[in-house]
Formats: sequence, structure tokens, C-alpha cells
Amino acid sequence: MEEMSVTRVALLGFGTVGSAVARRLASPASFVSPVSSEITLTHVVDRRARVKQSASGLPSSVLWTDQIDDVLASDVDIVIEAIGGVAPAGEWIRRALLTGKSVVTANKQVVAREGASLWRLAARQGRQFRFEAAVGGAMPIVRAVADGLTGDSLTRIVAVLNGTSNAVLSQMDATGCSMAAALADSRRRGFAENDPSADLDGTDARAKLAILCALAFGIRLDANDIAARSVSSLGSDDFAVARRNGRTIRQLAFADFDRGTSTLGAWVAPVAVDRDSIFGRTVGAQNVALLIGEHAGEIGIFGAGAGGDATAVAIIGDVVSIARDRAAIVPPPRLTSAFTLRPSIDSFEDAVVPTLAFAEAV
Amino acid sequence: MEEMSVTRVALLGFGTVGSAVARRLASPASFVSPVSSEITLTHVVDRRARVKQSASGLPSSVLWTDQIDDVLASDVDIVIEAIGGVAPAGEWIRRALLTGKSVVTANKQVVAREGASLWRLAARQGRQFRFEAAVGGAMPIVRAVADGLTGDSLTRIVAVLNGTSNAVLSQMDATGCSMAAALADSRRRGFAENDPSADLDGTDARAKLAILCALAFGIRLDANDIAARSVSSLGSDDFAVARRNGRTIRQLAFADFDRGTSTLGAWVAPVAVDRDSIFGRTVGAQNVALLIGEHAGEIGIFGAGAGGDATAVAIIGDVVSIARDRAAIVPPPRLTSAFTLRPSIDSFEDAVVPTLAFAEAV
Repeated sequence: MEEMSVTRVALLGFGTVGSAVARRLASPASFVSPVSSEITLTHVVDRRARVKQSASGLPSSVLWTDQIDDVLASDVDIVIEAIGGVAPAGEWIRRALLTGKSVVTANKQVVAREGASLWRLAARQGRQFRFEAAVGGAMPIVRAVADGLTGDSLTRIVAVLNGTSNAVLSQMDATGCSMAAALADSRRRGFAENDPSADLDGTDARAKLAILCALAFGIRLDANDIAARSVSSLGSDDFAVARRNGRTIRQLAFADFDRGTSTLGAWVAPVAVDRDSIFGRTVGAQNVALLIGEHAGEIGIFGAGAGGDATAVAIIGDVVSIARDRAAIVPPPRLTSAFTLRPSIDSFEDAVVPTLAFAEAV
Repeated sequence: MEEMSVTRVALLGFGTVGSAVARRLASPASFVSPVSSEITLTHVVDRRARVKQSASGLPSSVLWTDQIDDVLASDVDIVIEAIGGVAPAGEWIRRALLTGKSVVTANKQVVAREGASLWRLAARQGRQFRFEAAVGGAMPIVRAVADGLTGDSLTRIVAVLNGTSNAVLSQMDATGCSMAAALADSRRRGFAENDPSADLDGTDARAKLAILCALAFGIRLDANDIAARSVSSLGSDDFAVARRNGRTIRQLAFADFDRGTSTLGAWVAPVAVDRDSIFGRTVGAQNVALLIGEHAGEIGIFGAGAGGDATAVAIIGDVVSIARDRAAIVPPPRLTSAFTLRPSIDSFEDAVVPTLAFAEAV
């Protein structure tokens, strides 16, 4: 028999995502994994640890604290960062790596801003920094781009990366309601925050697109440099017009990299897409991405893009990957800033996207 | 600066897939990979080595031979098996692992039959046995199931796994032609073999489905035990009837595992699917798979399922994964034979599949 070691996991943040992760980790039967290591949740760090602990339903063996230092000084192997936001999340991730822990995060803003230095730090430390949950919810797009499609040479990404705006826009399309009504509905379903501006104006999707550009094209792109138009001013009239033309409206994230000239076009914006395209058929909080390579053409992936359970699936997948091979080498992408960014998103609506049908006939 | 080591690669078989792989390996700029290791093709083994070498266009540094022992006795790090068929491919893979090489293969028959013992052997040897290309062509479904979705608990797979039959069936649907005419067209496009029976009768898809069942459900399933109906007797009349009902016909591979009772249903058969479903919209040599989990719902993946270039993308991705981390631990799935196989495929056509639309509204 193989020896059963224990992988100790600490969780930072017990909100929607964190509590979903904790519930899953507390019932090992909920994920089937050929790991010769038992995965055990040992710590939860939350500002409101005392209040949340009693209602958590977690085993009493879990140590609750509001002090990150309790985790950093412990013998945990993996730190899951699920507090969100830039600070203190980025600093806590860095300190966890510096104290010899591997880190799993769902934090797209931290990965987009500090990913390059964090994965170099992880490599230097002989630890892992994984962030499948930062892009695309449960769909394993980070692995697809960083690992599965390294045998191709990717040139273009066209995607729906923000579940909240997609839920709102597809609701407006389906019911003819106003954006305010669709937002209220998404809040009831748990997909929209009280302040949805980061979703609607593209801030969230830009961070995710910057991460994908780093992995797919090897470029260091500041998410703030990605052109963006908000979907927030769209009304039912816009959907009526689109519908008359056989279209609907989606928030698309687009990136196109010409390796010959090192020129990147990248934007996040509302686009009138064919109703029959894979984007038009992506409804609710789903995400979808087309990854286009020089050799294999279009590879598509879709799935639940938002929600605690979907994000927990991606986080736990990363935890399992680390538990399987704690000494795995995850080489940091070599990123270059030597590229030209095409400045505008002029006229892309007619030029590029609506012609992408779901599948081209061979 | 990091040290640049060399990963030596031998290629077995210089047919459609092998030659596509060799062309790509010979032009390293054709894949971008953060690997601190130069990947070099050092050997090609082919029965007709002498004839093929001169027209190959490969560098003269590549050693051509018709003797597998030349590779086994060499210092190559990775052996790519692209000869296909069960013998001698399975034996050569085993001998390569025994002599300390890692192995990459596209051979679904060998993986379906001998995968369990080969990946245990690889683990014992401290080497890797990878087979992304064995299922789904370029789409990274092996990684999605074996790695990316380990955070879920998969319960169902519904997929188009055979590019040839899909090209034939979608051609019959689009043009109203006979199967013989569609087959002739697919042969011209390079998607159908002279003898397409393994594609049409489901032998190919059953092997792929058995592999996915091992990875997704942890069960040891003999591909020959998977129920199958051939698509070969379908004619233009069948498509006409399907069309009148808003449907078309696809060869679907289906598996459904009830973990509570350890009961598996698994079959490969022609199914009348909604024209609007993701299966109906999968045309030509594309593959598509829906992976349904308890926690994240449907995750879908699609892409080029056949052809030398698509298969080469998956093979080279595996080579890059090994070159990145030659000491990586790829834990063999723990497989059990303790499950009950539901014997029939009765009435699935109306019961299960046509209700699966592309995306359910949230």
C-alpha cells in the first residue's frame, strides 16, 4: 500500500466562495481524486471569525482566527485565498509563498496585477501558485491555455468572461426588461453584487483577459490598457434593434495577437452577435471562450462562470493538483512588454465578431 | 539565467500524425512554451525509414531507423508512439517505459486496453505516460477530466468522439447524399480511412469512452462491454425524417455513473438530436463533450477531433508538459471493477439526449 500523507489547507475568507470551498473540503466524498494524500482543512482566517465559526458547521478541529500570522506560522501546505480585492489579498499571498506555502486563489485582480512576480516567487520558493478559479469559474480555461494548448500557437481569444453581465444581458434579451430590472433579478439569484459596476464596465473581464493574454501570448499586459466600453447604458431598445437583425448583445472580451509584428488588439465591449453564434447562445451566468490557434483552429470551452459552487470546483481542482505532486514545477511564463497595443476598438462590431459562427463546416 | 537542458524525443511512426508532429518539432517557433529545456527530435522509427527519410525534410541530425531497439538503447527522454493499432504499439510503449523513457501516445486502443497497467508502470518507473491525443483530437479533454475537473464529482459524459462519423453524418444531413457519397468525400478530405468500419460501428468511440470513464469515474471498463449500434445503415431517408422533427442524427457516446449504487450506463449509438443542440451544431470532423458534475453542472469543450495537425497539437502539448517537469508525478487513477453495467441502450433516444440543449438558462 502507498503511504497516506496529509496535505494541510488553510482558507482565507469565509464569504460566498470560501464557505463553498470549506463545505466541500469538509466532505471528502464530494470530490473523487487519485491522491495519495489526505486533504484536510486546518485553518479558517476571517475578519469575523468568531461570528462565523458557530454557524459554519465545520469540524471543531478547524482553527478559526482573524490573524493571518497564525496561518503563516503554522505547518499548512496550501493557502487558499478567497477574500477578494487587491489588499490585503496580494500581500497575504506573497507572505504565504515567502513562508513556504503553495497558494491557490480565485483573485483575478491580484493575478492580473501581480501574477508575473507571484509565479516567479513561487518558482523560486519551489512552491506552486495556481489560479484556475480566477478566469472562467468552473471551466478549466487556465489549464487549457497554460498547459493543454501549449502544442498550438494561439493567436486569438474571443470570450464571455463575466457571468454577471451575461446574466443581465441575456435576461434583458429574453424578457425585454430594463437593465435595472435584470440587475435586481441577478442580485436575487446571487450573481450580481450590490455595486455591479466592475462587471458592467468591463473591469472584471479586462483583468481576466489580461491573465489569458499572459498565458496565451506571453505578454505583460496592464488590464487598464485594455480598451473598454461599458454595457451599462444598454436598454431594451438596443435589444429590439439587435433582434430585428437576428442578433443579441453580449459583453465580449477579445484579444488578437500578431506574432510577426508583435501587435496586440484587445478590448472588452458590448457586441451585437448572431443569435445563433455560440456567444448568442451563452445565457445566464455561463462563460464561454473560443481559443484560436494556428494549427488546430478553434477550441471552445464553456461552463458555469460565476457562483460559489462553480468557483469552489476550480479552487479544489487546484488544491488536488498540488496535493498530487507538491514538488511539481510550474514554470513561470516568460513575459515580454515588447509589443504594440492597437489603441482602438473602432468598428469591431461589423468587422470581426458576428462572423464567428459556432462551428465552421469542415 | 536559467540553465537550458535538452529534452530528446524519438518518434515512432511517420504516417499522417507522425509526420505532422515531426514538422512541428523541427520548427520550434511553431509552439511557444515557457520550457527551460530545448526539445529536440533525435530519432524516427518507421518500417519504411529508408524510403521516407529522403522526402521528410527533417534535419540530417535526426537518426532514421526501422529498429525500435535503436531508440530503447539511446538516451532519448520521451518516446512518441504514433504508429497506431494494438501491436506492436502496446509492447513498444511498455518497453520504452521499462527502459526509463516517458511516453506520449495518440493510441486510444492501447490506452483503453492497457492504460491501467501502463500508467502504473510509468509511476513505478518515475516516468510519465500521457495520452491527450487519444481522445478528442486537439481539444484538451483528457486534462479537463483527469486534472481540471477533479474539483467536481463527474456523473455524466455526453459526447461526439469520432470525427469521421461526424463528418459523414453532418455531410449527409447538409446535402441529402448517401452514406457512400459522404464517405467518399471524407476520404478525399483525409478524415476517413479506406476501411471506416471502426469509426462507423463505434469501436473507435467506445475505446475513447472507456478511457474517459476510467478518468472521470475511476472504473475499469472494457470497451467491448460498451453497448453499440452502428451508424452504417443510416440513409438519406433517416435524415429526412429527423429533419421533419427538427432533429438531425449524430453518433453519440454516452456514460452515466451513479456513485451511490456504482451503476454505469454506457453506449455509443446514432441518436436523433435537436438541430439546435450543441451536438446538432457540431459539424465536420469536430468533436464535442459535455461533462456534467454534481457541483458545477455542465462543462463543455469542443474542437478539431481528427486530422494530423489537430492530433499533433495534443501530442506536442504532452511533450511540452513532460519537458517542463520531467519529475512530475502523474498519479495513476485508482480503478475499480466493482460496478454494475446496465446492459441495454433501450429507448435512450427519447429519454435522455434530445432534452440536452446547448445551454440551460440560469
